[in-house]
Amino acid sequence: MDISGMSPTRSFNNPDSARGEDYHPQDGPIKIQNPHIATMEEDYLYHIALGDKTHDLHEMFNDVKFVCFGGSPTRMLKFAEFMKEQLRIKIPAGMTLYNIANGSDRYVIYKTGPVLSVSHGIGIPSLSIIMHEILKLLQHAECSGVTLFRIGTSGGLGLEAGSVVITSEAVDGNLRQYMEVAIMGMVVKLPSFLDKELCQELLAMASEDDHFQTIIGKTMCTHDFYEGQARLDGAFCDYTQADKMAFLRRIHDKGIRNIEMESLCFAAYCHRANIRGAVICVTLLDSLNGDQITTPHNVMEEWNNRPQQVVARLIKKKLGISDE
Amino acid sequence: MDISGMSPTRSFNNPDSARGEDYHPQDGPIKIQNPHIATMEEDYLYHIALGDKTHDLHEMFNDVKFVCFGGSPTRMLKFAEFMKEQLRIKIPAGMTLYNIANGSDRYVIYKTGPVLSVSHGIGIPSLSIIMHEILKLLQHAECSGVTLFRIGTSGGLGLEAGSVVITSEAVDGNLRQYMEVAIMGMVVKLPSFLDKELCQELLAMASEDDHFQTIIGKTMCTHDFYEGQARLDGAFCDYTQADKMAFLRRIHDKGIRNIEMESLCFAAYCHRANIRGAVICVTLLDSLNGDQITTPHNVMEEWNNRPQQVVARLIKKKLGISDE
Repeated sequence: MDISGMSPTRSFNNPDSARGEDYHPQDGPIKIQNPHIATMEEDYLYHIALGDKTHDLHEMFNDVKFVCFGGSPTRMLKFAEFMKEQLRIKIPAGMTLYNIANGSDRYVIYKTGPVLSVSHGIGIPSLSIIMHEILKLLQHAECSGVTLFRIGTSGGLGLEAGSVVITSEAVDGNLRQYMEVAIMGMVVKLPSFLDKELCQELLAMASEDDHFQTIIGKTMCTHDFYEGQARLDGAFCDYTQADKMAFLRRIHDKGIRNIEMESLCFAAYCHRANIRGAVICVTLLDSLNGDQITTPHNVMEEWNNRPQQVVARLIKKKLGISDE
Repeated sequence: MDISGMSPTRSFNNPDSARGEDYHPQDGPIKIQNPHIATMEEDYLYHIALGDKTHDLHEMFNDVKFVCFGGSPTRMLKFAEFMKEQLRIKIPAGMTLYNIANGSDRYVIYKTGPVLSVSHGIGIPSLSIIMHEILKLLQHAECSGVTLFRIGTSGGLGLEAGSVVITSEAVDGNLRQYMEVAIMGMVVKLPSFLDKELCQELLAMASEDDHFQTIIGKTMCTHDFYEGQARLDGAFCDYTQADKMAFLRRIHDKGIRNIEMESLCFAAYCHRANIRGAVICVTLLDSLNGDQITTPHNVMEEWNNRPQQVVARLIKKKLGISDE
């Protein structure tokens, strides 16, 4: 695929675009790749219970510059509260943060100034729905220059538990750098390249004073938590400890540093929509040492904060907010 | 694959079993297909925050005979409340139904007598995790003769919205009757046959007095709500209304009556574990007429009750509970 001389922004509205590995989206308006939306009488975003006729999406969301996704609704509320502190957003007396997607119990959305904090549930299909609906929301709100982050949890490979991994490449369970989607009986392959510049910007936010390491590495994205990640502790398992270790060592040798369940779709949709996006996850265990996650709750809470801190530093830098 | 003369129960603990289309699981103890579990010091079911050392799973769950899964946590609480009424379970003064998986915010589990009501989130990966952990829980609790139901929502094909579809066969987005799982670099195909006898038993629970129709039909299970289901209203769409209609009519001609996102894995895991299972979903719209789901909340609530009612009738019949 020859991408020489192509401007990345030329590819808007062209799903067959030839944006390659080195794509770097420019700032610009969100422009979704579906001509049908403009012809619709109403666009009701069913899974977040918001609509372009029932809500003034422009007024509600036009100032959004960062959308941070994470699996757990509780964690994304905590992230919103953290960003409220970090961005020194004053909430008037008698008010509090509120789940904007309250009319549905599938996802949560919190807003703190220009930052949306959104839960995506577990796995690619669940993430896929919320990304479709958030991308449409951003277009309806006429947002510009938006950056997306997935701030998640993962299993690490050869890293001390609690380490933070910024994803350089997302690959599937067979190490392929694209997501397959069955569309009307055909299997379409969506490349899952991520913005390398944004990776480096995030890495630069790691501090020597952090009590954890932050690295850039490849991420394997699976459809299954147990067999898909070579665990021995699922309800089904027909392989041995030796099989498991051979597989994990093989993918470690190929540069995989963590395994989770959403990065492939997140990367593929960012690339496809020509929007800046990064995946940053804490590792809850070293899969080379075992399968079970039994870290005490308070330690886990502190680990969950780590990728949030790194992202918050970058958001503050971009917004010109100092720590003083 | 020659399955003549094979006893379905012979296949316990054999993941390569040759159980075919006509399998009908016998009553018997839950026996998961993973020899490693017995050797583990502790089995902590991470996503439901229950463990075989931290909880007396036998005492808590040994009487369970039915596990009912559904996507939405709120809907599964309502189902638990409904079953409490139906089974005439008296909750002592000062007590109430409680989410047993309260230590995690990923899934909910309610228990009303022999019935568990469990949320599974959206999509196969999310369902896969909770099925692994519920199957392990049932084995730790030494449960016997358990039947699983998925009580869900779906898009219908050629049916009045609000109809109830009992799944005869679950197929993927390319009409294949198996689920592909990437396990350690290999793609394994898990057949997704469902128990035909249980389908008929459920259908027999439909009443002439119901204000809705209940039918048996094939169900397509997709990894994506928008393009995967040929919708025109996602953030990405590069096909036309005519393409969409041609596809939907083609699958309708092949017997597909509804589309959702979990049945394939549910069926594959029931078949693999040799456990009785059925999928019964209400249709929230007729996809041949449009994509958007804009039915008023109170109507949707009544529709959501319909498959619950059919399942409740069968559970009461099996438990010998009359309506008088």
